[in-house]
Amino acid sequence: MLPLSAIYEPIQEDLNSVEDRLRSMSQVPDKHLSELLDHSLKAGGKRVRPILTLLSGNFYNYNRDALLSMAVAVELLHTATLVHDDTIDKSAVRRGLPTVNAIWGEDKAVLLGDYLFARAGEHCANTGVVLVTKLFAQTLATISSGELRQSFDAFRLEQTREQYLARIIAKTASLFVLSTESGAVLSQAPESAVTILKEYGHNLGIAFQIVDDVLDFIGNEEELGKPVGSDLAQGTLTLPAMLLLERYPEDNPVKRFFKDPTSLDDMRQAVEWVGNSAIVEECYDIAGEYSTAACRNLNHLPDNTSRRALLALANYVIKRKE
Amino acid sequence: MLPLSAIYEPIQEDLNSVEDRLRSMSQVPDKHLSELLDHSLKAGGKRVRPILTLLSGNFYNYNRDALLSMAVAVELLHTATLVHDDTIDKSAVRRGLPTVNAIWGEDKAVLLGDYLFARAGEHCANTGVVLVTKLFAQTLATISSGELRQSFDAFRLEQTREQYLARIIAKTASLFVLSTESGAVLSQAPESAVTILKEYGHNLGIAFQIVDDVLDFIGNEEELGKPVGSDLAQGTLTLPAMLLLERYPEDNPVKRFFKDPTSLDDMRQAVEWVGNSAIVEECYDIAGEYSTAACRNLNHLPDNTSRRALLALANYVIKRKE
Repeated sequence: MLPLSAIYEPIQEDLNSVEDRLRSMSQVPDKHLSELLDHSLKAGGKRVRPILTLLSGNFYNYNRDALLSMAVAVELLHTATLVHDDTIDKSAVRRGLPTVNAIWGEDKAVLLGDYLFARAGEHCANTGVVLVTKLFAQTLATISSGELRQSFDAFRLEQTREQYLARIIAKTASLFVLSTESGAVLSQAPESAVTILKEYGHNLGIAFQIVDDVLDFIGNEEELGKPVGSDLAQGTLTLPAMLLLERYPEDNPVKRFFKDPTSLDDMRQAVEWVGNSAIVEECYDIAGEYSTAACRNLNHLPDNTSRRALLALANYVIKRKE
Repeated sequence: MLPLSAIYEPIQEDLNSVEDRLRSMSQVPDKHLSELLDHSLKAGGKRVRPILTLLSGNFYNYNRDALLSMAVAVELLHTATLVHDDTIDKSAVRRGLPTVNAIWGEDKAVLLGDYLFARAGEHCANTGVVLVTKLFAQTLATISSGELRQSFDAFRLEQTREQYLARIIAKTASLFVLSTESGAVLSQAPESAVTILKEYGHNLGIAFQIVDDVLDFIGNEEELGKPVGSDLAQGTLTLPAMLLLERYPEDNPVKRFFKDPTSLDDMRQAVEWVGNSAIVEECYDIAGEYSTAACRNLNHLPDNTSRRALLALANYVIKRKE
């Protein structure tokens, strides 16, 4: 498997510019705000979404200024949702660092998230293209309604795989679609290419989230940067837990834990059972199918380094450990 | 004083359309989301911001479609900030109804606010004008950074009137400016008229917030729709409390309450002292100066019913009781 750094080589320089812009955002006069921004933006992350925007924008008229603005926008939108998610979940650690809510409290985290949404929207508007600002807003609506559904479904056992899929499409794949679609639109890709890149983002996002949900069970706490079993602890029923419920419909630790969220032994047992079962492989297989589907029509795009990078990224996403 | 309904008579019909659009927003398939939207949008409010947008757009080319979209956007942005504010403040009542956080919990309220920001952004993008989407995003950044500053300054006695002014400009006047400026821009007003309407919004917003801060001390709980003394209870030092501190620098109930936020008797005493002093009149005088400043250059705009409505609104704002 290629490391992520080899994958984004075609747009390495511009990704550095995105990074510079993200870091310079904390240079504001208000010292409290500056600290909050510094903390939430320095933790980094894989920058998958800006990579997608830049790569997707690299097939037709590479509109550097607009693409850089949009790449910053999608990463800021992602960061804002993480800040709010951590607040809602009362998570203490993210990417190996204490969360904003853990250090400064939930009230500051809510407001910081709002500020980040705003700055994301501003960078998006800087593209000068109304259509992408509309897609941006619609994506945020989709994400937050998906998160709301997840919140209302917390600790509910009666959920179907279709509901799971709809939820991860809303909360994760939609932003991947925004990332690829905006890259395509801003580079004046023909409609057929926009569709191909949207489909790529959609399927890649699903694959990415399924792997995320598996890693929450089998990941290494240090590599994950957060506690194992976080999803279960929040009452979020993900694919591995659903498969576990299907396999052991009678006596099941997920069932017991959802009925009594103080029974942490049951939660740990659920994590262990998933880790020692063929469920992990089954989930990776399903993620693999989406990853394959993501690449299905890429051969209709111009053959260049970015196309190869998108293929490599689809492979990376289902093999990653963090 | 003219009632608010007489003031918006020139744009009554379009304000009804704004109201219809706001109400129809709760028609979404997800029943939980639908309930949340219904609850947060039905409580109403004075709709001052959409009134400002429609009136400000009524001097040159009244661009109905774009103005309606923008009027919906500013009201949704306002509603979203209220939902988050109530969550942060753990307020139980707003406009006489239980808050979203009180009924559904803080997690749902954070996500509902995000959803409302998103839909606000979408309506703003529907204007088709990139400049207003940029102004919209910048305004949200200003508001949330203002709220953050307020949150960091909670229960701090060492605050100047300049800091107070900067804070209310950020958290209130900025959205009034967005409301008037967008109306002007969308109706292709000449630059000089845009400036006049921005200044109007800026000064009106300051006057409005000062009156809000006074009403928090002297208002009638039923008319206010929330408990008296809410600002003090949150540790927010507003103009009336500042003036009380200036008058009684030694033994002062605000001082005692900020040192020990459990001493509710001190809070009640502060409310009583302000209510029985000339501070109220002094605050109204200051608000009146901003209201006058708001109208200073309106005579350079075309003379029509909307201009008279803006003058009446400036008068209403400093005399209102709710």
